[in-house]
Amino acid sequence: MSETTTEELKSVQQRTAILAQAIPGVLSGFKRLSDEATKPGSLSPGLKELIAATLGVTRLCEDCILFHLSAAKRHGASRQELVELLGIAVEMGGGPAIVYAGKALKIFDALS
Amino acid sequence: MSETTTEELKSVQQRTAILAQAIPGVLSGFKRLSDEATKPGSLSPGLKELIAATLGVTRLCEDCILFHLSAAKRHGASRQELVELLGIAVEMGGGPAIVYAGKALKIFDALS
Amino acid sequence: MSETTTEELKSVQQRTAILAQAIPGVLSGFKRLSDEATKPGSLSPGLKELIAATLGVTRLCEDCILFHLSAAKRHGASRQELVELLGIAVEMGGGPAIVYAGKALKIFDALS
Amino acid sequence: MSETTTEELKSVQQRTAILAQAIPGVLSGFKRLSDEATKPGSLSPGLKELIAATLGVTRLCEDCILFHLSAAKRHGASRQELVELLGIAVEMGGGPAIVYAGKALKIFDALS
Amino acid sequence: MSETTTEELKSVQQRTAILAQAIPGVLSGFKRLSDEATKPGSLSPGLKELIAATLGVTRLCEDCILFHLSAAKRHGASRQELVELLGIAVEMGGGPAIVYAGKALKIFDALS
Amino acid sequence: MSETTTEELKSVQQRTAILAQAIPGVLSGFKRLSDEATKPGSLSPGLKELIAATLGVTRLCEDCILFHLSAAKRHGASRQELVELLGIAVEMGGGPAIVYAGKALKIFDALS
Repeated sequence: MSETTTEELKSVQQRTAILAQAIPGVLSGFKRLSDEATKPGSLSPGLKELIAATLGVTRLCEDCILFHLSAAKRHGASRQELVELLGIAVEMGGGPAIVYAGKALKIFDALS
Repeated sequence: MSETTTEELKSVQQRTAILAQAIPGVLSGFKRLSDEATKPGSLSPGLKELIAATLGVTRLCEDCILFHLSAAKRHGASRQELVELLGIAVEMGGGPAIVYAGKALKIFDALS
Repeated sequence: MSETTTEELKSVQQRTAILAQAIPGVLSGFKRLSDEATKPGSLSPGLKELIAATLGVTRLCEDCILFHLSAAKRHGASRQELVELLGIAVEMGGGPAIVYAGKALKIFDALS
Repeated sequence: MSETTTEELKSVQQRTAILAQAIPGVLSGFKRLSDEATKPGSLSPGLKELIAATLGVTRLCEDCILFHLSAAKRHGASRQELVELLGIAVEMGGGPAIVYAGKALKIFDALS
Repeated sequence: MSETTTEELKSVQQRTAILAQAIPGVLSGFKRLSDEATKPGSLSPGLKELIAATLGVTRLCEDCILFHLSAAKRHGASRQELVELLGIAVEMGGGPAIVYAGKALKIFDALS
Repeated sequence: MSETTTEELKSVQQRTAILAQAIPGVLSGFKRLSDEATKPGSLSPGLKELIAATLGVTRLCEDCILFHLSAAKRHGASRQELVELLGIAVEMGGGPAIVYAGKALKIFDALS
């Protein structure tokens, strides 16, 4: 994993941990929501995390992309699926989605 | 309450109920999150619901405005506080926020 | 002008007038801002209003589109310029921009 | 298919056809983009259209949801997959995504 | 105040000053709007600036957060109020709002 | 051209090239769309690229601003036109648009 990517991921996790101390009830509700949204079903957890990252692409949220691509990789998600999802992101988001789809692919390849 | 406003509120509630049957775990996590976010604290639940409605204004989400203004009214939130919040929404959202701030004020006045 | 378009335009204007009574200082600051932003310069007021409407397209704000296209027509803005601007909106906004660009063109043609 | 849903779908298609006459080159480029983005691959066209609709949910674009759910149905996409995708939309979009996820489910059920 | 935070705040202020030289009328209209929106009323200026920062959280605008939290601190706004507002931001913005709420809390703590 | 601006522009171009290898059909459709949207017409290519950059301002997409301002400069677009467009962006985008309008002006002046 590239050093910058690792550090930025740690930074997101640390900020989220501090937020969780400040509003624990809100974050634990979100964790329940999030666990339910990405549990195995008709779609696999890996694909679901890739889709969450794709929503991060159209929302132009780089740290969201990083966070969910990291989770997707832990679930063994494939680059080919990501690539196809990025095409849909471009269809629905135009030029700005191209910029963040490019960031997403670079982050995916940088994650070990 | 004006008839249109009442019907649209019911419509939002019905659609959300059907969604809750489809993804109960996700919605129950969200309910926990939402209850925690609007519980009494330094800020009152009424003001918190007004602020949620204000976030709906800058997000251009009319049903969100309706839903949260209805909750704000149940908590006895004041029109003056709403009006001041709409000013901040205009500062942060420009022209589109003016359009939805106008909708918000009309909805607030239509809710009995 | 088609009846629906006329009524919706009136409705936006009425809601904005009520908002202006509630937060007159905020709205008068915005009016100053808005007058300055669309005054004659290197670009004409008509083109500037078309561009404001185009920003309404990518922001998915139908009433914004209506409001600014109405102003653009009063300044004699051309359909050809609108059409070229809508192409840029599609480039920068993808599928959702196509939906609202279609609405914009229909509104422009409906305005007398 | 419910009458309102059918009419709204026709309305989107008509507005898009008029836009395509105005900027044919832009729309034909978009059609190429769109066809490529949703062609069969690791993910099926039906699932890809559901994902496009999900991006419409977080973008709060009701006509986008309608357009892509209609395409998804033509490809035989399943309600269970939609439902799981809506959970991810809620995770990434909060309250406003709940409102539009509810609309999406209602539209899917209304489409024959 | 941490050095990075100080420098970034200065950078925002410098860029805004250069913009104000280029379009003085627009920016002076905005200043009027902004002063009116955050003046003392039912809600205090400090709380109003925190709310502006919260709108910056759901808009994913880091410099907006920095700018308005700095103003909030000058007005003596409390961390507890910010924390409660961030909970509402998460309710209305989902995962991306968590990322920027984490940034907001870090910035607030870094501001002296 | 300032070194940072040059490097960031190269970085956007490299990421987009890698994306184009991954989804060539999608990107070639987008290129067609984009070429059509910015070709000479009633509005010049230079002005059209400035308008694309302005849409990047209200979308809060810094790399989009950089990419389209660079193209605008190649077409000989004028600073005065950009400045007037930024005023419209502020009208339609409020505070966050001021932040990104400031970035846009700085980028334009940094591009040789």
